[in-house]
Amino acid sequence: MDDAALAQLAALRRSIDNIDAALIHLLAERFTCTQAVGRLKAASGMPPSDPDRERQQIARLRALAIDAHLDPAFAEKWFNFVVAEVIHHHEQIATTGTVSTAPTAE
Amino acid sequence: MDDAALAQLAALRRSIDNIDAALIHLLAERFTCTQAVGRLKAASGMPPSDPDRERQQIARLRALAIDAHLDPAFAEKWFNFVVAEVIHHHEQIATTGTVSTAPTAE
Repeated sequence: MDDAALAQLAALRRSIDNIDAALIHLLAERFTCTQAVGRLKAASGMPPSDPDRERQQIARLRALAIDAHLDPAFAEKWFNFVVAEVIHHHEQIATTGTVSTAPTAE
Repeated sequence: MDDAALAQLAALRRSIDNIDAALIHLLAERFTCTQAVGRLKAASGMPPSDPDRERQQIARLRALAIDAHLDPAFAEKWFNFVVAEVIHHHEQIATTGTVSTAPTAE
């Protein structure tokens, strides 16, 4: 790999690192919201998962993915991966009132 | 669930939907970058995966997750999920010169 290609690789990696920092912070905000949903659902005795809502979310995310030139099948797989964690949190909240996997650092 | 709780649930879901739209668009940008990396690597005969780079990324993302009050174990699991897709793309680029799963909509 020549110097120009190495410089190009380093620049792309800097962009990937910036995007990843944004993704991590947005995921943290998403879990803040879903944990609030979990507490609301637990307080009112609603089930942790909501298949109708999830179907609507998947249809919307697939459409957004196509607009963004992202593979819609990957977007759906990614959503299911995140939702599995959310449902795990909701079940913990329903059982213990809190999420045990939250980091303890202040 | 009373009206106030339903209104609160609807508001949280609007925030989640906004965050998800941002996440999908950032993931699309991330894959644009990683596909450019894949083409560079294929052109210079470098292997698709780079364990040293991945170790650095995981350490950085775990630290960012703790700062953002996101479970660092989840951040690592999430990263590995995304990287599995990236390596799949790199292998496709090395074999065929393109990513077959890219959406065809213009």
